[in-house]
Amino acid sequence: MRKEGNVIYPYSEWSVVEEDFNIENNLRNETVFSLANGYLGMRGSFEEGLADCPGFSHEGNFINGFYESHPIQYGESAYGFAKNSHTMLNIANAKKIKLIIDGEELSLARGKLNNYSRVLDFKSATLTRSFEYTTPNGKSVRVNIRRLVSLTEKHIAAIRYEVTPLDFSGKIEFVTSIDGNVKNLSAGDDPRVGSGLQGRVLSIEEKVIVGNSLALRQKTKTTGFSVACAACHKLNANNYAASTEDSELELAIKYDIDAREGESIVLEKYIAYITYKDCEESRLLEASLKLAAEAQMKGFDHYFEEQKKYMDQFWYRADIEIDGNAALQQGIRFNLFHLLQSTGKDGSTNIAAKGLTGEGYEGHYFWDTEIFVLPFFLYCFPDISRKLLEYRYSILDAARQRARELSHPKGALYPWRTIGGEECSAYFPAGTAQYHINADIAYAIQKYMESTNDYDFLLNYGAEILFETARLWADLGEYIESKGNRFCINTVTGPDEYTAIVNNNCYTNMMAANNMSYAYKVSLLLKDNYPEHYRRISEKIGLEENEPEIWNEAAQRIYIPYHEDKKLYMQDDSFLDKKPWDFENTPIEKYPLLLNFHPLVIYRHQVCKQADLVLALFLLGNRFTDEEKRINYDYYEKITTHDSSLSPCIFSVMASEIGYHQKAYDYFMKTARTDLDDLHGNTANGVHSANMAGAWMCIINGFAGLRAFDGTLQFNPYLPSDWEKYHFKVYHNSCLIDVTVNKEGIRYELLEGDEISIYHKGSNVTLRKGNPVNFN
Amino acid sequence: MRKEGNVIYPYSEWSVVEEDFNIENNLRNETVFSLANGYLGMRGSFEEGLADCPGFSHEGNFINGFYESHPIQYGESAYGFAKNSHTMLNIANAKKIKLIIDGEELSLARGKLNNYSRVLDFKSATLTRSFEYTTPNGKSVRVNIRRLVSLTEKHIAAIRYEVTPLDFSGKIEFVTSIDGNVKNLSAGDDPRVGSGLQGRVLSIEEKVIVGNSLALRQKTKTTGFSVACAACHKLNANNYAASTEDSELELAIKYDIDAREGESIVLEKYIAYITYKDCEESRLLEASLKLAAEAQMKGFDHYFEEQKKYMDQFWYRADIEIDGNAALQQGIRFNLFHLLQSTGKDGSTNIAAKGLTGEGYEGHYFWDTEIFVLPFFLYCFPDISRKLLEYRYSILDAARQRARELSHPKGALYPWRTIGGEECSAYFPAGTAQYHINADIAYAIQKYMESTNDYDFLLNYGAEILFETARLWADLGEYIESKGNRFCINTVTGPDEYTAIVNNNCYTNMMAANNMSYAYKVSLLLKDNYPEHYRRISEKIGLEENEPEIWNEAAQRIYIPYHEDKKLYMQDDSFLDKKPWDFENTPIEKYPLLLNFHPLVIYRHQVCKQADLVLALFLLGNRFTDEEKRINYDYYEKITTHDSSLSPCIFSVMASEIGYHQKAYDYFMKTARTDLDDLHGNTANGVHSANMAGAWMCIINGFAGLRAFDGTLQFNPYLPSDWEKYHFKVYHNSCLIDVTVNKEGIRYELLEGDEISIYHKGSNVTLRKGNPVNFN
Repeated sequence: MRKEGNVIYPYSEWSVVEEDFNIENNLRNETVFSLANGYLGMRGSFEEGLADCPGFSHEGNFINGFYESHPIQYGESAYGFAKNSHTMLNIANAKKIKLIIDGEELSLARGKLNNYSRVLDFKSATLTRSFEYTTPNGKSVRVNIRRLVSLTEKHIAAIRYEVTPLDFSGKIEFVTSIDGNVKNLSAGDDPRVGSGLQGRVLSIEEKVIVGNSLALRQKTKTTGFSVACAACHKLNANNYAASTEDSELELAIKYDIDAREGESIVLEKYIAYITYKDCEESRLLEASLKLAAEAQMKGFDHYFEEQKKYMDQFWYRADIEIDGNAALQQGIRFNLFHLLQSTGKDGSTNIAAKGLTGEGYEGHYFWDTEIFVLPFFLYCFPDISRKLLEYRYSILDAARQRARELSHPKGALYPWRTIGGEECSAYFPAGTAQYHINADIAYAIQKYMESTNDYDFLLNYGAEILFETARLWADLGEYIESKGNRFCINTVTGPDEYTAIVNNNCYTNMMAANNMSYAYKVSLLLKDNYPEHYRRISEKIGLEENEPEIWNEAAQRIYIPYHEDKKLYMQDDSFLDKKPWDFENTPIEKYPLLLNFHPLVIYRHQVCKQADLVLALFLLGNRFTDEEKRINYDYYEKITTHDSSLSPCIFSVMASEIGYHQKAYDYFMKTARTDLDDLHGNTANGVHSANMAGAWMCIINGFAGLRAFDGTLQFNPYLPSDWEKYHFKVYHNSCLIDVTVNKEGIRYELLEGDEISIYHKGSNVTLRKGNPVNFN
Repeated sequence: MRKEGNVIYPYSEWSVVEEDFNIENNLRNETVFSLANGYLGMRGSFEEGLADCPGFSHEGNFINGFYESHPIQYGESAYGFAKNSHTMLNIANAKKIKLIIDGEELSLARGKLNNYSRVLDFKSATLTRSFEYTTPNGKSVRVNIRRLVSLTEKHIAAIRYEVTPLDFSGKIEFVTSIDGNVKNLSAGDDPRVGSGLQGRVLSIEEKVIVGNSLALRQKTKTTGFSVACAACHKLNANNYAASTEDSELELAIKYDIDAREGESIVLEKYIAYITYKDCEESRLLEASLKLAAEAQMKGFDHYFEEQKKYMDQFWYRADIEIDGNAALQQGIRFNLFHLLQSTGKDGSTNIAAKGLTGEGYEGHYFWDTEIFVLPFFLYCFPDISRKLLEYRYSILDAARQRARELSHPKGALYPWRTIGGEECSAYFPAGTAQYHINADIAYAIQKYMESTNDYDFLLNYGAEILFETARLWADLGEYIESKGNRFCINTVTGPDEYTAIVNNNCYTNMMAANNMSYAYKVSLLLKDNYPEHYRRISEKIGLEENEPEIWNEAAQRIYIPYHEDKKLYMQDDSFLDKKPWDFENTPIEKYPLLLNFHPLVIYRHQVCKQADLVLALFLLGNRFTDEEKRINYDYYEKITTHDSSLSPCIFSVMASEIGYHQKAYDYFMKTARTDLDDLHGNTANGVHSANMAGAWMCIINGFAGLRAFDGTLQFNPYLPSDWEKYHFKVYHNSCLIDVTVNKEGIRYELLEGDEISIYHKGSNVTLRKGNPVNFN
């Protein structure tokens, strides 16, 4: 285990380790050490909390998609502004366990700490904390706590809390509780955090203490969502007495134990959360108690073994081995582990920008899912990527409604940010105006179909989304005379949020054309091969006979802002008419620009927050020549601040393609350990999910050059000069391909499936099971 | 007196008369019948109120510039967003007098009403209400109430309340009070009204009842402004007893009178308001009592006579006589009367969008002052126009501060809307982005100087404003290569709020060039003629030697978006790239568009809320050929909705110039009686001050063709075909010119000053006192 320079955690291949408790880092650590299973998330806060150090801990327990809705406040409102925001709620804290040592309550902020360590283990998906602690009065104990959020039973979390008196025999008390006195962090000045909720928004509707079990049910006011939480306990100690405490907001059981020096006491706590989605409200409390009791029957070791099995399977497909850089090895695994933890897998939830690790961006889902995170799942666990797309289908009605609010008589307009489907963006120039979300979702469906040929999905979900999004574009755009009667899309905002409300954002136009063109193709395919389905969908959405032709025509005649002499794709019509940002006279403390300059100042300049045209170079790479890629990359790189964490990964991928290997590596470095090294200084608010997936892209799409423009995989691998080797797997069309890149060359091996045709550096190669192929 | 069609008030040349009390019209009437003196404003609500009909009355008493500051709420904030808004406060209601007739309280909503009339008289600036009233129990009285807000003593208002029992002798009671239980209307969904204030924001700090006088002092929480209000009473009755009531929020005196049939009882109430601006806080209450007592000593008749004298002088200069259309005659006088009432005349206040008649737009000052209202004062009462410009100087420091917030190292950026100087716009695309406010103020200064040669103003106020605004443009714009290295101004919003955040808004660029060019000229003038002043100002603002040359260079090289083939000035760079609005399929109930379409939808189309380029055709008319004026007028007229009340007057003026006389008249009709006929349906929120001045422009700049591009007046009069005659005066360079236009021809007479050179239809004419000049 090495620890270099000013890195926060020592480099460890399969874990994150904190070796010293430092309260200054605690908020960040609570994010980093979060446990989640895509449904239930728990920040890495301590069982005993840090109540004596206000501001250094933010308790967080979340259920994906469990939110409150609240009106957005506008100083000056206007027609069609998003009315409500959704906020993922901080729900009852069931991991709370206080330890009282001979009358003195354990707090890491007081007393003396020795041999402290906290370990997040990627192979067992378990968080372990162990230390020796001497109270101010001089009593010492050894403490060992393991915690897990079950990956196999989404409602369950479990804690195993062991304490051993080291130098005394006396009284040890556990106060284990479910704390309903929880609320979300209040909004701050940083627009990247924030929530309009005030105070405690979850009322406690019911609570009960039965034997060694606690349970309470909370409910939101506006959305009317209920969640029940139960905890069932098992104490391994010789002599103890139990009592209960039922206060207004908290339920507790207190165990008074006669402890003996050197003898361990173990408290196991089995936690179950369950919501209205899985059980009718009147039976929720009972259901949670039942789940917790069943979990207790199975026992901690059972869950621990299940975690390991689950993770074995996960890593078998997902792992990327890197030889030659322990920091990056740790970083990529940390990222993939958190991606797994963050991702909703039930078709009605998605991936929040901060996963289930914090309240940044209010727990909203963005295009981050389709453009950044989904490829990882698509090429490792396509079933999960299908579930992510099914979520989009689940909010299609809301998107249709939003389109009407924006005066589109047909089609659907997906919300820029949401949980429940309603547009939650309170600043439309960098929210609702980002119409490209529609095309991003369509693009993801296209990639999904090309990699899975999952017609069940297409017929039941995908086609309808494609048609409705294509319709929106057809209605939005117009053939403009002054633009050569090309199909123009005016007054939108592209991915780069440092330019807003522009005409013909190049990315948007290209992606919209792709959306319409693919919807057209799918319409033909359905007409020919699934006429019943085509008829059903057409009837449902009132699709007229000629609409697909209209989409195709618009796609063919799309207007692309292009400067012939410079061979430059212009980010939008007016981009080159702006003055370049004065980077030379912008001191480092003025970044990110959005926190230091009025939007008008930023919009007035040629300056990019993130990849915009460069993202198109990647996603629609087959539309551009190599020369164009280089020219445009060079141009936009100079004016991009990467103030968005979504940016460096895209630049890394394209730098790899163009041959700027050092740049590719440098950008990857910024991506691979964003949260581990807290590069944006805001990991305390939650991990950067899309960026984490971006690290996967840097390697797979970047160093290994994976592309799949027409359903066929292309690789173009190279080995970063610092590395000895990297090794990963890609799942595509039911084939699992093992790829190893090292100093000797490149090796492909088909592990699952009989045969697959791929391209290696432009040449067609057929891989067959049992016949690895090597290239020098 | 005629009353035609569905007009609300009968046509009366010198008054507005309400002949029947109709509660449905009451909120609008309260606005129409407002009294004010530019400092103190009182809505025309009844002395007795309408407490038994909630929602049909909004009590309103305002002091110009007396506001509370409150944080603007943003769903998603960003750097540099305006932090606070100011709201003109509804202050203590001192006009409250309840009348109790033999035990029954007078309410126009109950009982029986006969011979009702309410008259706002333009010659005496007095509001009179008279009626006979029979209580539910059958007791009848005659009531006659006169009210005035003194035009000669700004702190004073007075009420003379006469009641005569008609069919009984018995008890009459007056309960006369100062009611501190006041608050502003809450914000609604209409973005054109609105305030972030909640509840009662004025605390009552002191109150006292002394003899027949009441006084209380209110104070704001955030701004810390104090206002004291006193009322002194004089009762003319034979037998009465007085008692007082001192409740938490209201002070009252109750007069119990033994009334006799046929004998009148008269209560006079003298009201004084005074604020922290005129007296130290600890002495405010006393000062208000003193003012009220002094007013009582002078008596109601004194004030009534003073009003008439003041108005005689006002109308001598300001009146526009129209022969041939009583409706328009009434309309224009109503408008000019309200302009007088609305306008702050102390150099530290200005003209709220709704004057002192309602809470619309929170009592904010906009560009309405300089571009719409100021010309009327300039050519009638230049002293008042100077005071309006002095107000801009009073907030120059705030404008400098705002420029820094927008990252301009030098110069000043005036707020789009404000009371106290701070930018209060909560929606920057149609607020802060309207940089043209700077040039509008500079333009007004230029016009003021050309008409007054008031070097005292220029040296002490004007030059500094001109230099600071010019600097802002110089910093804002840039020589852009793709625009032929012309000076471009990107990412601003022009006057037309249906297009936002554009590059090179034509109006803005032309007006900015005018600003810079005039500032340059003034700098030369000061250098040559007032070097001490130039040095003083330069030192104060750190003006560098070469800056004026930089302004001049930018002005000369300004980029103007122009379509050569079409001879069309483009509203902005991209305006012609947008699709025209589908007017044919927009039903009437979808107007105004801003209340029925998302801004993105509106911004995406060629559609204008108001005159933008057409306003430039007027203000900078000497820059355009006649052909250009016609072509551009024709183009923009087709796509303008006039959803802003500022629009029709400008179209009228330009239609007159181009020769579209019928159009000019039609637009004038929409302007002249906007509030009298409640054309926008929102007069209840207050009058449309700028539109009222627009009516003056329609006649003077439109029908009479007044222009003053280089300080010399040009007239180009014609007689609207419906009219017999119109007659007005213009004051310019210390000369008062009387102009009569009738079927026989046009007559100019110089009434004050010895000699002045003007242009009549392009020909130079010299007017001399005592020698009227006639043209056929």
